[in-house]
Amino acid sequence: MVNAKILKVFPKPAPGRDYVIEHTHHEFTSICPVTGHPDFGTITVRYVASRKCVELKSLKLYLHAFRNEGIYFEAVTNRICDDLGALLRPRSLTVSSDWRGRGGITSVVTASWGKRGAGRRRA
Amino acid sequence: MVNAKILKVFPKPAPGRDYVIEHTHHEFTSICPVTGHPDFGTITVRYVASRKCVELKSLKLYLHAFRNEGIYFEAVTNRICDDLGALLRPRSLTVSSDWRGRGGITSVVTASWGKRGAGRRRA
Amino acid sequence: MVNAKILKVFPKPAPGRDYVIEHTHHEFTSICPVTGHPDFGTITVRYVASRKCVELKSLKLYLHAFRNEGIYFEAVTNRICDDLGALLRPRSLTVSSDWRGRGGITSVVTASWGKRGAGRRRA
Amino acid sequence: MVNAKILKVFPKPAPGRDYVIEHTHHEFTSICPVTGHPDFGTITVRYVASRKCVELKSLKLYLHAFRNEGIYFEAVTNRICDDLGALLRPRSLTVSSDWRGRGGITSVVTASWGKRGAGRRRA
Amino acid sequence: MVNAKILKVFPKPAPGRDYVIEHTHHEFTSICPVTGHPDFGTITVRYVASRKCVELKSLKLYLHAFRNEGIYFEAVTNRICDDLGALLRPRSLTVSSDWRGRGGITSVVTASWGKRGAGRRRA
Amino acid sequence: MVNAKILKVFPKPAPGRDYVIEHTHHEFTSICPVTGHPDFGTITVRYVASRKCVELKSLKLYLHAFRNEGIYFEAVTNRICDDLGALLRPRSLTVSSDWRGRGGITSVVTASWGKRGAGRRRA
Amino acid sequence: MVNAKILKVFPKPAPGRDYVIEHTHHEFTSICPVTGHPDFGTITVRYVASRKCVELKSLKLYLHAFRNEGIYFEAVTNRICDDLGALLRPRSLTVSSDWRGRGGITSVVTASWGKRGAGRRRA
Amino acid sequence: MVNAKILKVFPKPAPGRDYVIEHTHHEFTSICPVTGHPDFGTITVRYVASRKCVELKSLKLYLHAFRNEGIYFEAVTNRICDDLGALLRPRSLTVSSDWRGRGGITSVVTASWGKRGAGRRRA
Amino acid sequence: MVNAKILKVFPKPAPGRDYVIEHTHHEFTSICPVTGHPDFGTITVRYVASRKCVELKSLKLYLHAFRNEGIYFEAVTNRICDDLGALLRPRSLTVSSDWRGRGGITSVVTASWGKRGAGRRRA
Amino acid sequence: MVNAKILKVFPKPAPGRDYVIEHTHHEFTSICPVTGHPDFGTITVRYVASRKCVELKSLKLYLHAFRNEGIYFEAVTNRICDDLGALLRPRSLTVSSDWRGRGGITSVVTASWGKRGAGRRRA
Repeated sequence: MVNAKILKVFPKPAPGRDYVIEHTHHEFTSICPVTGHPDFGTITVRYVASRKCVELKSLKLYLHAFRNEGIYFEAVTNRICDDLGALLRPRSLTVSSDWRGRGGITSVVTASWGKRGAGRRRA
Repeated sequence: MVNAKILKVFPKPAPGRDYVIEHTHHEFTSICPVTGHPDFGTITVRYVASRKCVELKSLKLYLHAFRNEGIYFEAVTNRICDDLGALLRPRSLTVSSDWRGRGGITSVVTASWGKRGAGRRRA
Repeated sequence: MVNAKILKVFPKPAPGRDYVIEHTHHEFTSICPVTGHPDFGTITVRYVASRKCVELKSLKLYLHAFRNEGIYFEAVTNRICDDLGALLRPRSLTVSSDWRGRGGITSVVTASWGKRGAGRRRA
Repeated sequence: MVNAKILKVFPKPAPGRDYVIEHTHHEFTSICPVTGHPDFGTITVRYVASRKCVELKSLKLYLHAFRNEGIYFEAVTNRICDDLGALLRPRSLTVSSDWRGRGGITSVVTASWGKRGAGRRRA
Repeated sequence: MVNAKILKVFPKPAPGRDYVIEHTHHEFTSICPVTGHPDFGTITVRYVASRKCVELKSLKLYLHAFRNEGIYFEAVTNRICDDLGALLRPRSLTVSSDWRGRGGITSVVTASWGKRGAGRRRA
Repeated sequence: MVNAKILKVFPKPAPGRDYVIEHTHHEFTSICPVTGHPDFGTITVRYVASRKCVELKSLKLYLHAFRNEGIYFEAVTNRICDDLGALLRPRSLTVSSDWRGRGGITSVVTASWGKRGAGRRRA
Repeated sequence: MVNAKILKVFPKPAPGRDYVIEHTHHEFTSICPVTGHPDFGTITVRYVASRKCVELKSLKLYLHAFRNEGIYFEAVTNRICDDLGALLRPRSLTVSSDWRGRGGITSVVTASWGKRGAGRRRA
Repeated sequence: MVNAKILKVFPKPAPGRDYVIEHTHHEFTSICPVTGHPDFGTITVRYVASRKCVELKSLKLYLHAFRNEGIYFEAVTNRICDDLGALLRPRSLTVSSDWRGRGGITSVVTASWGKRGAGRRRA
Repeated sequence: MVNAKILKVFPKPAPGRDYVIEHTHHEFTSICPVTGHPDFGTITVRYVASRKCVELKSLKLYLHAFRNEGIYFEAVTNRICDDLGALLRPRSLTVSSDWRGRGGITSVVTASWGKRGAGRRRA
Repeated sequence: MVNAKILKVFPKPAPGRDYVIEHTHHEFTSICPVTGHPDFGTITVRYVASRKCVELKSLKLYLHAFRNEGIYFEAVTNRICDDLGALLRPRSLTVSSDWRGRGGITSVVTASWGKRGAGRRRA
C-alpha cells in the first residue's frame, strides 16, 4: 500500500539560498489497472525547497510501494506531485514519469505543483 | 481504413491542474501514394488535456489503421492533429512525425492544433 | 549542372494551418573549388510553407546535381536558400549545411531566407 | 580535512571582457554521513570572473580533500559554492553536483552564488 | 610562433544576408605553461560575417601554430577571439575551447567579441 | 501474397573467388498470427554465392510482400532461408531476424541453409 | 507464485533444421531475499529446439510471476534453466541474467542446460 | 576513369616483421549502374604487406576516381581487391565495402585476395 | 585496511552444474603510491564456483577497503585475484581492472587464478 | 627527440603468474613526414611481462617525445614495438596505433614483437 506518511523530511541546508534538487528513480514499477501487466518507468522529482527537503531513502521506499498498485500513468504522476507538494510546500516542484514502451508506444507525463496553467506553455 | 471513431477517451485525472501528456508511437507505417512503397516513421502526440484524455490502446489501434493507407507525410501529420484536436478539444496539442530515410533523405513534419501561426516561429 | 528548374512543387496540404516541414539530405557531395577534392555533408531544409511545398524526389535530384560542381560551403548554402526561397515564397525558411572534417576541421553554415539580421542573434 | 585556504587564484586574463569558465571534476567522492558508504559524483563549476580566476590544480586538490568527509549532497554543493564565491567574488557562479545511483536513484543539486531566487525559475 | 598575419580572408558571399558560419577544429594542442605537458582540446569559432570571411586552410595553419606555445586555457581562447575579431570585424563572434581531462578535470572557456557583459548571462 | 518467384538473380561477379555478401533490411513488418497486431523487425541475409546472386530490388519487394502476412517469427526466418537457398544454391547462407519488443521481450531467430546441426554450436 | 506449468509449447517449425531462438526479457524484477528490496534485470533465453518451442506470451507470464518472489541471482538463473530444460528437452539451452547495479555493483549469471562443464571454459 | 596505375607503393618498413595495416575510406561514392543514382559507402582495406605498402594519398585518389563510375557493390569490392592484390602481392589482403541504405536495405561485401574458399567459412 | 577476512561465502546453488558468475564494481578507488593522488577504476570478477560463492555485500565492503590504500594497478589486480582464489578455490577465476585516464593514458590489467600461462595467449 | 632511454622499468609484481597489462595513450601526436601537418592518434600497448614492467609516467613522456618527430604510421608503430620489446623482453607484446582521419581515411597499424608471422593470421 502506498502511504505518503512513509516520507521523511530534514531541514533545508543553506536555507538562505534557493537551489534545485533533482532525484531520478530509474526502477519504478506499478501495475496497469486495465490489463494487470506490470508497467516500468523512470520518475524524476525536481524541486526548490522552501524549508524542508525529502529524505532520499524514505523517497525510495515510498516509490517502491507502488510495486503492486494498479494505477494509470497520469494518476501516478499527479499523486506523487500531490504527496510531495503537501509534504514539502516547496517554492516549486515538478514530477515527470517516463514509461517504457508497450506495443511500440512510450509515454511521458509531466506535472507541476501549485501552478494550474504551468503545463500549457510546454506542449 | 482509418477511422477517428476508433479513438476512446477518459476523463482527465487531476482536473484542477494542467499537465503535459506525451505519447510516442515508434512503429508507424503507411504507404507512399506515389510509389506504393511503405513508409516508416515515429509519431509523437503531446498535449495538455482540457477535460478528456485519449485512451492509449485505442490510440495505438487508430495509428495501426494507417498501415495500408496511401498518404503523404504532411497529410498524415495534419490528419492526426485534426482528429485528436476535434476529439479532445485540448488546451494545446502538437503532433510530430519523423520519417526514416528514402534515398538519403529523412523528414520531420510538426503541426499544432488551433494555432494558425504557431509553426512560423519555429522554422 | 545544377538547375533550380528541376524542383517541383505541390499545393500545401491543410492550408489553413502553419506547420513546420524539415527535409535532411544525408548524402550531399560537391567539389572543393580550390583543391578539386570532394566535400561531403548534410543539408537540412526547414520551412513553413505559404501556399506551395517542394516535392521530395525533385529536391533529391536537385541536390544530387551539385555532385560535380566546384563550390564553397558558404555559397552552396546560400544558393539552396535562394533557389528554394524564390520557388516557395515560404513564411519562413532556413537552410543548414554540416560538413565532414578535412584536416581536423568540421564546418556548419546556416542561412535564413528573407531576414537580413536573422543570423546575428544566433552566433 | 577540507580547507578552502588550499585554493589559489590568479588575475583574470583579458580583464576587459566577460567570458565563461567551466571546470568539471569527474572523480569526486565523499562519504555518506548516514551509512558511511562512499558516494561518487561529478562536480561542475561555471563562473564569470570579476578580477580573479581559480587555479586548476588547487581546485583539484580542494575537491580531493572531500574524499573522507561525511557530508550530504545538498551540503557539499552549497559549501563549494560558498567557498568559491567568497574566494572569487565572481560576476556569476553556479555549482552543480551529479551523483551516481544508490538503490536505483540518481541525484543532481544545483546552486548559484549570490542570487537568492535563482534556482526558483529552474525547477 | 603564432602569428595572426597567417590568417587570410575572402569577401563574404551573399553579402546582403546575415548567416552563421561555424568552424570546429578537433585537433588543437598547445603546451601547459606550468608543467610543460601538452594540452589537447577542441576550438569552435562561430561568427556572422560583416564583409569578410576567414579562409579555412589559413585558419587551420593559424591554429596549428599554437602546437608548441606555452599558454593557459583562458588566454588561448581570448587570443583567438581577439585575433579573429580584429581581422574580420564581424557582426558577432564567439570562440569556445573544450579541453580534455587532466587528473579527472575537463574545462570549457567561452568568449564573445566586442560584448563586455555577454558572458555574464550564461553562467 | 509472398511469392518467391518475385526474386531475381544475376550471375556472380568475380566467379573465381568466394566472398561474403550481406543484405540487411531494416524495415521488415508482418502480422502476428495470434493477435493480428503488426510485428516489426530487421532481416539479415548473409551468403557466399555459388553461381548466382540475388538482385537487391527484387529482394526488397519480396520482403515487402510479408507486410500483411500472418506468420510466426520462427516460420518467417525459415521461409526466407528456404526460398533463398532454393533460388541461389549458395555455398553458405544464414538468415537472421531481430524483432522489436512486445511487452518487454525482444527476439532473434537465426537459421542456416543446408546444415542440419549448424545452429547447435551457437546457442 | 512462480509455476512452470504456466509455460506453453508449440511444435518446432522447420523441424528438419537446427536453428537458434533467442528471447530477451528486459523488464525482469524479483525481490532480494536478504534485504527485501526489489532487484531489476534482463533475462536472455537462447536455445536450439529439439521438437518443441516455448510460446512467447506464456514465457512472459512465467517471468512476470517472479515479481514478488524472494530469490538470489544465482538461483533465479538456474531455476529458469531447469524449468525450460525440463519442458523443451532442447538440443542446447543457455539462460543469462544481467542485473542492474546495487551499491555500484552489477552482476551477470550464465548457465547452460545439460552440460556440467560448459561454463568452465568461459570464465 | 578508375585507373590502378594511380596507385603508388613504398618499401615495407620493418620488413623482418609481419604486421597488419588497415585503411578505412569513409567517403566512398559511385553510381548505381541500374538507376544512375549515387551510392555511398565505406571501404576498408586490411593487409599484411610482403615487400610493398600502398601510399595513402594515392589510395585516396584511386578511390575518389570511382565517383562517376557506374558499378555494382559486388564488382567494386572485387575490383579494388584485384587491383591492390596485383600491386602489392601481399601476404594477405581483405577488402570490405559497407553501403548506406537504399529503400531500407544496407549491404556489406567482403572479399579476400588469393584465397578461393576464404569467404565460405564466414557466412 | 584491506582484509580478506571480511569476505563471506555461501554454498554454491545448483551444485551439479557449472555456470559463470560475474560481478562488476564500477566505483573502485585507491591511492597512487607514487603521487598520493586517487585512482579510479572498475573491477570485474568472473568465476565458475567449485563449492562456494562469494557473498555480494561482503565483496563490496572488501573492495571499499582499498579506498585509502597506496597500491599499484598491477598489484591491486593480483591481490584481489589471490584473495578470492584462496577463499573460493574456484574452477576458474579472472579478475580485471580498468582504470580511468591520468595524463591521457588509460590502463587495463587482467589476471587469472591458478593458470600460469593463461595471460600469454591473450596479449 | 625520441629516446628509448627515457623509459623506466620496475620488477613484475606477482612474478609467478602471467597476466595481461594494457596501456592506451589517447593523446598521441606526431608530424607527417611528407606534408609537415600534425597527425593525431591513439597508441595501445598490450603485453605479458616476463620479469619487468614499464613505468607508466616514463611511458607517457616517451610517447610525448614524438610530438615534433616526422614519422610514418607504420614506422611509429614498429619503433614503439622495437623499443618496448628490447626493454622488457616480454612473453608477448602487441602495439597498435589508431589514426584520426585525413581526407576521409582513418588507419590502424598493429605489430607484435618477436613473432614474424603473427600478423598474417589476422588480416
